[in-house]
Amino acid sequence: MIAIDATHDPKLRSWVASANQAGCDFPIQNLPFGRFSHGADAAPRIGVAIGDRILDLRRAGLIDIDDMNALMAATPEKRSALRALISQGLAEGSARQAEWESALVGQSAATMHVPCRIGDYTDFYTSVHHATTVGKQFRPDNPLLPNYKWVPIGYHGRASSIVVSGQPIRRPRGQLKSPESVAPVLALSKRLDLELELGWFVGKGNSLGESIDIAEAENHLFGVALFNDWSARDIQGWEYQPLGPFLSKNFGSTLSPWVVTMEALAPFRAPFERPPGDPQPLPYLDDADNRAQGAFSISLEVLLQTVKMRDAGEAPVRLTHTNTTRAAYWTPAQLVAHHTVNGCNLQPGDLFGSGTLSGPEPDEAGSLMELTSGGKRPVTLPNGEQRSFLEDGDTLILRGYCEAPGAIRIGLGEALGTIEAS
Amino acid sequence: MIAIDATHDPKLRSWVASANQAGCDFPIQNLPFGRFSHGADAAPRIGVAIGDRILDLRRAGLIDIDDMNALMAATPEKRSALRALISQGLAEGSARQAEWESALVGQSAATMHVPCRIGDYTDFYTSVHHATTVGKQFRPDNPLLPNYKWVPIGYHGRASSIVVSGQPIRRPRGQLKSPESVAPVLALSKRLDLELELGWFVGKGNSLGESIDIAEAENHLFGVALFNDWSARDIQGWEYQPLGPFLSKNFGSTLSPWVVTMEALAPFRAPFERPPGDPQPLPYLDDADNRAQGAFSISLEVLLQTVKMRDAGEAPVRLTHTNTTRAAYWTPAQLVAHHTVNGCNLQPGDLFGSGTLSGPEPDEAGSLMELTSGGKRPVTLPNGEQRSFLEDGDTLILRGYCEAPGAIRIGLGEALGTIEAS
Repeated sequence: MIAIDATHDPKLRSWVASANQAGCDFPIQNLPFGRFSHGADAAPRIGVAIGDRILDLRRAGLIDIDDMNALMAATPEKRSALRALISQGLAEGSARQAEWESALVGQSAATMHVPCRIGDYTDFYTSVHHATTVGKQFRPDNPLLPNYKWVPIGYHGRASSIVVSGQPIRRPRGQLKSPESVAPVLALSKRLDLELELGWFVGKGNSLGESIDIAEAENHLFGVALFNDWSARDIQGWEYQPLGPFLSKNFGSTLSPWVVTMEALAPFRAPFERPPGDPQPLPYLDDADNRAQGAFSISLEVLLQTVKMRDAGEAPVRLTHTNTTRAAYWTPAQLVAHHTVNGCNLQPGDLFGSGTLSGPEPDEAGSLMELTSGGKRPVTLPNGEQRSFLEDGDTLILRGYCEAPGAIRIGLGEALGTIEAS
Repeated sequence: MIAIDATHDPKLRSWVASANQAGCDFPIQNLPFGRFSHGADAAPRIGVAIGDRILDLRRAGLIDIDDMNALMAATPEKRSALRALISQGLAEGSARQAEWESALVGQSAATMHVPCRIGDYTDFYTSVHHATTVGKQFRPDNPLLPNYKWVPIGYHGRASSIVVSGQPIRRPRGQLKSPESVAPVLALSKRLDLELELGWFVGKGNSLGESIDIAEAENHLFGVALFNDWSARDIQGWEYQPLGPFLSKNFGSTLSPWVVTMEALAPFRAPFERPPGDPQPLPYLDDADNRAQGAFSISLEVLLQTVKMRDAGEAPVRLTHTNTTRAAYWTPAQLVAHHTVNGCNLQPGDLFGSGTLSGPEPDEAGSLMELTSGGKRPVTLPNGEQRSFLEDGDTLILRGYCEAPGAIRIGLGEALGTIEAS
């Protein structure tokens, strides 16, 4: 149970003026964690985003570690206590202001890092709309497999190639095979795609052999970031049977630098119900309190800026948009309970990709593969350019935010990546 | 290119007497690395197995670190130089004997650990016999998929649940669905299996976006251990489509504690040729020198001891046996070249599972699923017991060794695990 407490008070304002501006991703009600470095001191430190600044938690006297994984391992009670201290200290009128002014760094002056050491990364497949649309392309007769509505499908991913927003993504080479040719060839991917995902970070872990009960599952999550699981569809089509995607996914994945905590997400829940006729989840995936609280509602969008647009000084354009409650069939709590039902041990800093978050409408799809019907119907951009798949120099930007009546809007920042020619 | 040098001299004997006994896994020609702890000092240190002892490398004045990953990151030249120093110091007549006697610990008095921090673990599928036999069970019409002889099929695995030999493996729960029933149920796995694999450890890594050329690939490997990739076949059958195995594999995997280095393996190569009619590998997977040197030849066996056998004082019995040159369609060098062809970055300590190493004959299969035809033809043990799949209390032991004319036999030790009731 994540409680709505005083840190969410919509009347709360910060002495950091930029945090109080309408539309700011990082008002005092958000307080996401990240790792940054600054100036001559290159070793990453832990900070909290506030407006256009970063509060250096060590300099502010709040922690004495630089290890985000250790911070993630803390109990929810300890994390909430730390959040309360940060909130109080950054609030307008706080006696800490004079002391903490010197613990602030401008975000534009800082280098951001992947938020923590990611021991294991699991990618799920939580959007039934994505699973159905993609399934139609791979298996026209059998788009949604019979296990989908019972099993929160997931598979293991590559942790080493996860990079932070801003790092270029090099176009991968791989084996490609057209239906007409007898043999594959080694070539650069021609069907490079994005995947609009969220990345959920594990907080407190569990021991090997022990399961996490669904009622406790949210207490084992630390927070969420934006995640672009870049995919080479032509490599994927040839390699993925029978053991799943591999080189089509592990050449790079982009994570936004700020982890919005479960505490910050608390006010942004919406009812979720399975469509009539769908089976109810097995008991280990079903919790009445969880259902009553609702699913986290996060609005998401993807923007594209081509080289031509950049050269012409044109802003990125929106490629797609959706919301988690429209896209996700399984909640983060269900993913935790499922992942550990067999005794698999989670560790602080482990990452769960949500899978591509596609909503029910065609313009809510989270990948080009879906938006362009496998490349057959290219998207036309406002400047007349067309895209079936990504071209060198294309910049993709994922953004996300939460809104609810009576709550201050919070944002997830952005996950940006540009395709680099090989 | 791994060179055969003076450290392999078959006339070389050690002043550690147990290392000179015939059949010993750890003669002076082997010198595998592991992490051990001993007595009150619980922090793991790096050691080398020699006979029934461990040489503590820090106490011997050879290194000043306890971080195996850092040691693995060294260049092959540095590693060979360290190997030469250890070999010279442990050789009969060495002036180091008096000094190093106090740097020895009995293996029976030490606690072994997973050899290093495994950042990412990839499981391959290198036995064409395993792929064909298992494929027949899942897809009778289409056992070997068309990509198999082109793509060294691999997928990502779970690193957190890899344990060292001796740790119990708890029987996992999971969703099971019989063909007759409409809905799955949550239950303990009834089709628990072993997988006879080797685990290859990455040494020096590569940067994201860079590929490792096949001619350089062996220089990026550190060594090999035994690996049991325990698998729950009933969980696997229901969950694995479309993204591959997940909870059926990540409840525990057992690694032997000693990593036999590439340098130690150098004398044990045998020619390998693709069967006539098979396609030649694409150029990025093909290297003339590598082909001329041959593949590593490692003999493997699996032993089983049931509770009844243990109670009766009966020794483990052999369940299966094969050799890498009979089982593996792809070499470790090809796995490295393939894994990085898209720019995926490997890091020191990363683990490559070979996949189940089944030879061509039915009694050379590396899993019960194959040995018992999916459980339909149980194996009968010498004491009359039968096994379709594993039962609680069953102990499985993987062993491996290398032999070649003119070379001293070296062993890989063992990977032992006992199934614990849930």
